[in-house]
Amino acid sequence: MARALELAESGLYVPTPNPRVGCVIVKDGQMVAEGVTQAAGHAHAEVMALRDLKQKGGSAEGATVYVSLEPCSHHGKTPPCTDALIHAKPARVVIAHVDPYPAVSGRGIAALRSAGIAVSVGVLAKEALEINPGFVSRMVRGKPYVWAKIAASMDRFTALPDGQSQWITGAEARADGHHWRARSCLVLTGIGTVKADNPLLNVRAIETHRQPRRAVIDPKLEIPDNAKLLQTEGLILFAANPDEGRVTQLTSKEAVVVNVPDQNNPDRVDMNAVMQWLAEYDINEVHVEAGAGINGALWRAGCIDELILYLAPTFLGHGLPMLDIPGIDQLSEADQLSFIDHDNVGQDIRIRARKFDRWQELVEHIESSNAQHAL
Amino acid sequence: MARALELAESGLYVPTPNPRVGCVIVKDGQMVAEGVTQAAGHAHAEVMALRDLKQKGGSAEGATVYVSLEPCSHHGKTPPCTDALIHAKPARVVIAHVDPYPAVSGRGIAALRSAGIAVSVGVLAKEALEINPGFVSRMVRGKPYVWAKIAASMDRFTALPDGQSQWITGAEARADGHHWRARSCLVLTGIGTVKADNPLLNVRAIETHRQPRRAVIDPKLEIPDNAKLLQTEGLILFAANPDEGRVTQLTSKEAVVVNVPDQNNPDRVDMNAVMQWLAEYDINEVHVEAGAGINGALWRAGCIDELILYLAPTFLGHGLPMLDIPGIDQLSEADQLSFIDHDNVGQDIRIRARKFDRWQELVEHIESSNAQHAL
Repeated sequence: MARALELAESGLYVPTPNPRVGCVIVKDGQMVAEGVTQAAGHAHAEVMALRDLKQKGGSAEGATVYVSLEPCSHHGKTPPCTDALIHAKPARVVIAHVDPYPAVSGRGIAALRSAGIAVSVGVLAKEALEINPGFVSRMVRGKPYVWAKIAASMDRFTALPDGQSQWITGAEARADGHHWRARSCLVLTGIGTVKADNPLLNVRAIETHRQPRRAVIDPKLEIPDNAKLLQTEGLILFAANPDEGRVTQLTSKEAVVVNVPDQNNPDRVDMNAVMQWLAEYDINEVHVEAGAGINGALWRAGCIDELILYLAPTFLGHGLPMLDIPGIDQLSEADQLSFIDHDNVGQDIRIRARKFDRWQELVEHIESSNAQHAL
Repeated sequence: MARALELAESGLYVPTPNPRVGCVIVKDGQMVAEGVTQAAGHAHAEVMALRDLKQKGGSAEGATVYVSLEPCSHHGKTPPCTDALIHAKPARVVIAHVDPYPAVSGRGIAALRSAGIAVSVGVLAKEALEINPGFVSRMVRGKPYVWAKIAASMDRFTALPDGQSQWITGAEARADGHHWRARSCLVLTGIGTVKADNPLLNVRAIETHRQPRRAVIDPKLEIPDNAKLLQTEGLILFAANPDEGRVTQLTSKEAVVVNVPDQNNPDRVDMNAVMQWLAEYDINEVHVEAGAGINGALWRAGCIDELILYLAPTFLGHGLPMLDIPGIDQLSEADQLSFIDHDNVGQDIRIRARKFDRWQELVEHIESSNAQHAL
């Protein structure tokens, strides 16, 4: 299963909106074939592994198949993997976790079992969840899994007061940041960042065959006509009761304008509505790269699952903060996160921290549906 | 040599003001004896290793002796280790680095060589420097090696605006902080911290046979008479032209008052003078545990070598900063540090960062004196 997870991870940038899945076929104690889920509309991991085996002249009959997610049982863009597996007649299928997609959850397992194939569920389930937090989140909560990327000095300023922020962190940290953009389905920023930096927010520092979609929180559609983002395909603009004429102008530039005003403040965007809209739009993972205002608004709205903080070995003394949130009165009121890892990235350190309760919700869902289908 | 360094490190809390040294004797490819430098006035590592060997009935004749610092050649509180080594007649002595103490630097090596013993210099020298940065700094620069311990939230606040700071970091981080207190020769704080928290600043969370001395930056000797620190032995108070009557009062309580006014601001303490005084007082390593004012003043005066930052997985939104330093205008003006390590400590992360140029000065000194005595 560890190898199946490695395979799933090798396709990290690829299959959105489908989950990343890896599959390994073992026969007589030997790994005889493996497969990775391809880009949306193409073959899933199980089919790839069976094809690999066939090409090598082998047969899966009596083999054990390890797959990092329950095989699909429905006709989507591709035929169901359970049919292919049943046809291949393995003795046993081992699954990391049950498919969180409500329409099929447990059905693949049931179909395999009816065909006389033994099925084990729950091997390295949490590790598998780490590979598809967005897919699971979208299925379980109707919202994407959201991380905010922040680069800051040791005294936690993201830029000097005048906005200078280039090269606070080094080239390796920027490339690493592009890895997170590449795995995401969508990069989200705010109109302040667009006006200040005119960024493209695409993946440049590393190779990928797929660019994430991009979106801007832009309540009054102030995006400048020369904004580079307007030249990218299918830019999404989240607005709050914007001017109709401006909507028409922007739509003609192929941007998508989504009106999601906050009920309590019609000049602001409702961040939860943004996330619901994105989930319906098949967005699994959102990479936020914005200023303190948007970071803070998302944090306050409970929309951020994870922080990816690049810490540079320097002090600025003053500057722009990481996120604007109201101060607390008692330490006991502080939001609890948990650090999940920290690594050297060139001269900088990357620290990842998760909102503990939000992650626990996904873990518990996976564990309870695994328990339900364990036998 | 790696084992000799391990031994040296095992005595991390012990021998101040002497350096921590480890010694291993190898004969016929076997480690036959080892020793660690004991508390000041007691035996050094080489003598301990020779004693160990003698007890086991062995002889060092023809052996190779690995020692993490050049053996001493002068009569201090103990007789010189070079004499003991010459008497024991090993074939070869391998040394991590030359003694930085100017009075003896290279003399031990010369004495061994005159006695016909082969000497190699420079094995794991940087690693050995990591174990005695304070001793080397005091010898080379006439100043201790200084680290500032800071515990902060992810948004870099060390306390809420009203000063609440207990339990921002967890029990493991506090115990780890006590490890750093224990290895230091002196814990330094400011009068603000004394007034706010009335701390003892001793080592409680871990075992040690030696408590560090404690010192307070207290320009006008405002320390309250009921301060717990006044009940500790030999508290040092750094003042700036204080009231003579108050000096007499405090001296009668066995505190040591040192008048080190800043030439440019007679109401403030000259931080560099503090450090010079401490080095003359045989202080190798200073552990700073203070507020943003003292941290900032030390930083601005160029007195901090290292930051030990405990990062708690939480956000406070507002509060007290880590260190008060003037803001820079250009990113290129920012002080450069380098991260040296980062570790999980309970729920928190400990990040160590060094002032790059200050460390390089020590490394270069060690490397150049090693080169000088290489043959």
